[in-house]
Amino acid sequence: MSILQGQPIIDCDIHQLTRGPQDLLPYLPRAYQERIRLFGTGLSQRVGYPNGGDRGYRADSWPEDGGPAGSSLELMRRQHLDPSNVEYGILLGQEYRPIPSLPDVDYAAALARAYNDWMIERWLDPEPRLKGCALIPTQDPRMAAQELERIGARPDIVGALVPNGARFPYGQRFYDPIYDACVNLGLPLVIHTGSEGDGMNGQASYYIEKRQGRPLGYMEHLASMVFEGLWERYPTLTVVFVEGGYVWLPTFLWHMDADWKALGNETPWVKRAPSEYVFEHCRFTTQPMEQPEPIRRLLTVFEWGRAEQTLMFASDYPHFDYDSPELSLPALPEEMRRRVFAENARTVFNLPARQPAVAAD
Amino acid sequence: MSILQGQPIIDCDIHQLTRGPQDLLPYLPRAYQERIRLFGTGLSQRVGYPNGGDRGYRADSWPEDGGPAGSSLELMRRQHLDPSNVEYGILLGQEYRPIPSLPDVDYAAALARAYNDWMIERWLDPEPRLKGCALIPTQDPRMAAQELERIGARPDIVGALVPNGARFPYGQRFYDPIYDACVNLGLPLVIHTGSEGDGMNGQASYYIEKRQGRPLGYMEHLASMVFEGLWERYPTLTVVFVEGGYVWLPTFLWHMDADWKALGNETPWVKRAPSEYVFEHCRFTTQPMEQPEPIRRLLTVFEWGRAEQTLMFASDYPHFDYDSPELSLPALPEEMRRRVFAENARTVFNLPARQPAVAAD
Repeated sequence: MSILQGQPIIDCDIHQLTRGPQDLLPYLPRAYQERIRLFGTGLSQRVGYPNGGDRGYRADSWPEDGGPAGSSLELMRRQHLDPSNVEYGILLGQEYRPIPSLPDVDYAAALARAYNDWMIERWLDPEPRLKGCALIPTQDPRMAAQELERIGARPDIVGALVPNGARFPYGQRFYDPIYDACVNLGLPLVIHTGSEGDGMNGQASYYIEKRQGRPLGYMEHLASMVFEGLWERYPTLTVVFVEGGYVWLPTFLWHMDADWKALGNETPWVKRAPSEYVFEHCRFTTQPMEQPEPIRRLLTVFEWGRAEQTLMFASDYPHFDYDSPELSLPALPEEMRRRVFAENARTVFNLPARQPAVAAD
Repeated sequence: MSILQGQPIIDCDIHQLTRGPQDLLPYLPRAYQERIRLFGTGLSQRVGYPNGGDRGYRADSWPEDGGPAGSSLELMRRQHLDPSNVEYGILLGQEYRPIPSLPDVDYAAALARAYNDWMIERWLDPEPRLKGCALIPTQDPRMAAQELERIGARPDIVGALVPNGARFPYGQRFYDPIYDACVNLGLPLVIHTGSEGDGMNGQASYYIEKRQGRPLGYMEHLASMVFEGLWERYPTLTVVFVEGGYVWLPTFLWHMDADWKALGNETPWVKRAPSEYVFEHCRFTTQPMEQPEPIRRLLTVFEWGRAEQTLMFASDYPHFDYDSPELSLPALPEEMRRRVFAENARTVFNLPARQPAVAAD
């Protein structure tokens, strides 16, 4: 029996790819077109650890036209959006997410703009089930804010996307122009794993090792956000942590709370227990969800982490470690199921209720 | 009139390239062949700043067979080795120099081995005028030493090659296994500019900015080597600084000497004035040589820096900013000319005197 019981889902982590840099050229100034033709995009290949499946993707997700996995909207509809009963899917891109590691900030900003315009025109316009998060050049937070202001009021842009690896933890005031823009536009900050080793995080030797380190970056960002007082400065800002696991969260919150009781006089601007900020302002996605034996043990963690409030479903389509909405979670109580598979994401990304016409698809 | 007066030259910085990763596949274990076919080499593209000429190279250096500049031995002979009267040319590679930035040290070591074997078979064996420096995986200095021991006794391998950008400055004892091997084999350490931003050096935004920063990395390495007592530990080790300029050297040595007089009690193992170690153990290459007006002003700097002992000619063929041996330097006094254009390099790289048969070419 389906654990979903007909529940439509909102998938918070879908990856769409370009067929190659040529896809972005029409959206770039001529000087950068020329640069990419001559020198390539210059993006770090650190994300290019060899990994699983077929070159990192579901073996069945490579389109027949020869393009990369994730580059065909038609195949995405056929493989995932239709059969998984996806009400909305949030696009988080792939090969351009390391833009914040580029040395030239004007070029980084132009590339983020081009990626965003390409995503809008080639994915969001033709497929109303898809929404997108905007890439931003965090090297210069004011330019990042300008990019958010340029497109962030569109109903199909639902968040600001940054990688886990960063020059400074995301609680630092360096980033405040970005948070000003997020709050003004009502957009969450969405952190996706990646670029570890390009910034504050150590560089793992292997992909399998890098996967273990994902929560470490997220813990560092979380602690930075709490103890820098991010949510005292931005009381309406939501932050989404994508693909970094979930079971570490409850014990980590316990530690922050205990330390805050003992040592909180060092950071008097942190007025509430750390866990209170996190429960109110942070959301986490499911994939890759831990799978203990028996799987119902997850329910204990979900209760402890207040999953009905903090957890949102993600499939990671078309990556090799795709999580099926039917198979990756234990059966949940009805209210928790409704919230984890759709309603929490609907609130965070401000998604309209399903229209009857769409429901009839 | 030629400033060379018939003097054959030893060129300390020539770049030879592969036609693509396929050139190295025959030299790699099958697992890494597969990795590269599926995921590419994974090398950082940080060295890929857009730069001058035609995609970074002399516009006339792109072979007619469609391969990259620097990938044709025949063209190198025709364009540079023959007309420039090159007695010996030292090959310093190009696209594989960032190997020390790779996260997986076994893979890095395999790639260095493959590059070295390819260089020997495709360049050094067929052309006796060419000598090569070995790439080494400095991530693990013991593995780096093993690679040097594997091939470093060959007469056509004349140095150990590392990039300017490094996790730690090169004076630190972390690197001692490499220096043990260099000294045992009689090989110099050769530092070429590159990979800045992957290690201790800050990341420049632009290529033009990165060029200015080259001496900074070299100063940092030099100070580290002097004050860590590198040459007290390795009194026969030579270090070559390639493509990092020269005019900054005399004043920098003055500063180190002055500080050593005032503060040397902090580092009592530094027994001699810093400049004495540098004059004895360090060599610098000419290209890109500064060109003041009038150019004879360089002679003052050359005297101050003891160029007749410390400076060695380099062309940087086939890069866009190639220095012609005829045009890039002022006329030098005879003994200095002989040493800068050939004899200093002959000593450092232990190159045999020209044979009459070769001289008759």
